[in-house]
Amino acid sequence: MNLNENEKPIGVFDSGIGGLTVVKRIASTLPNENIIYFGDTARVPYGSKSNLTVIEYSLQDARFLINKGVKAIVVACNTASSIALDELRKHFALPIIGMIEPGAQAAKAATKSGKIGVIGTRATIGNKAYSEAIRKLDAKLDVVERACPLFVPLAEEGWIDHKATYEIAEEYLKELRSLNIDTLVLGCTHYPILSKVIKKVIGENVTLIDSGVASAEIVENELNKINLLTENKLQGKQEFYVSDIPVKFKEVADLFLGRTINHVHKVDLEVLTEI
Amino acid sequence: MNLNENEKPIGVFDSGIGGLTVVKRIASTLPNENIIYFGDTARVPYGSKSNLTVIEYSLQDARFLINKGVKAIVVACNTASSIALDELRKHFALPIIGMIEPGAQAAKAATKSGKIGVIGTRATIGNKAYSEAIRKLDAKLDVVERACPLFVPLAEEGWIDHKATYEIAEEYLKELRSLNIDTLVLGCTHYPILSKVIKKVIGENVTLIDSGVASAEIVENELNKINLLTENKLQGKQEFYVSDIPVKFKEVADLFLGRTINHVHKVDLEVLTEI
Repeated sequence: MNLNENEKPIGVFDSGIGGLTVVKRIASTLPNENIIYFGDTARVPYGSKSNLTVIEYSLQDARFLINKGVKAIVVACNTASSIALDELRKHFALPIIGMIEPGAQAAKAATKSGKIGVIGTRATIGNKAYSEAIRKLDAKLDVVERACPLFVPLAEEGWIDHKATYEIAEEYLKELRSLNIDTLVLGCTHYPILSKVIKKVIGENVTLIDSGVASAEIVENELNKINLLTENKLQGKQEFYVSDIPVKFKEVADLFLGRTINHVHKVDLEVLTEI
Repeated sequence: MNLNENEKPIGVFDSGIGGLTVVKRIASTLPNENIIYFGDTARVPYGSKSNLTVIEYSLQDARFLINKGVKAIVVACNTASSIALDELRKHFALPIIGMIEPGAQAAKAATKSGKIGVIGTRATIGNKAYSEAIRKLDAKLDVVERACPLFVPLAEEGWIDHKATYEIAEEYLKELRSLNIDTLVLGCTHYPILSKVIKKVIGENVTLIDSGVASAEIVENELNKINLLTENKLQGKQEFYVSDIPVKFKEVADLFLGRTINHVHKVDLEVLTEI
């Protein structure tokens, strides 16, 4: 065992800054690990783009992290996880953990009635990523999916308890509610920000699955299995890279990560497309 | 006068497909002109990105159109117009028409009370592009600006008469309404799609300025001045290029352009970043 390998950081990438909610989960599960985050804010969002484009961007994002010397990659973007995971695993040998399988496993573990709802971006839902992953675990489970494209901009606006957010949640979730699901997968990293509204509208008795929490546990298991967990006992360090620093970056980063980011590195798009 | 020059197409670019509302206006004002449209759907939206990134993307978009042999360029994106117009005019010699000045002129012509409101994306409003352009025309005019980031995703969802859209418009427009403006500039190409809601919320007596209509008139004047209007008497042809074909492309294009696009060309991002 090479000690040095263990002390490499975990790489996390996302289409933008939604994945900071996943960093928060990983840091809570694995507080001693160093984390390098890359957010592709110059090309965000991925959720409305084509599969080919999402695969191309994801390969670039992963390459950027690998060049930074990470020991594993977490694809903290449900859209990229649902579209690009196989392609990423074909290209790179290190452990790559997505959002879909962990979320599907957590949903299977949580449901009693066997009726599961999944919400996500248009791309994630269009690819039926969650329903296929859940049915692969147990073909008897009943899965209904629904795209909620306005939830991302609502979360980024910080309208986490606004009347309009309730109206929109009502429209998006009414069908799922009428189907009496007992478990709802939040299949987009932005959605945990809106969990209060979602919970109120879908019903307090419905279990919400945060794929970020589920994937943080898988990261721990995977690294443990191959003896790659850090032996560091101090608090892990985090570094943040983005391809663009958007106007509202600081505000949104605070809301998503739950603490202030003091320094963020800007990566030129040329660097990304040439590696 | 080189006849050939007149028969070149007008180039129109936008961050995505919102600019199709501008194509609709140009085609209505100048029905015999050929139009080439480029929508940067692989990197949409520009409205939440940094100035440097918006300038870089805009230069690439313009270069793409120039390589297609256009005689003039319409920057059918308020964000790009507000940030990149000077830079574009420095780089390229052909006529380049943005959205801001035409919209500002139309607002000045329309207002009686001298109180003008402007709504747009976070980037357009953050740059104070409209208020500066309007005050340059007449320093006595009173301009109040407000960013409405959720209007773009609402228009793309097609929620043009939804209860939630009214709620959101109510939140965004209440301050402007209380200031008794008599003219409101729709400073984003997506907003004319929501004009029914906006009109109801801001008040039926407020004149809405569609910058697309205003800029189409400027295009006509500019081309007329330099004798570059087409002499073609048949209906002009339109060609559409995008950097990505998003999941909902057809639906949204129909809504924005007012007719079906039968064929759209996909441009690889590499082509764009290398020209």
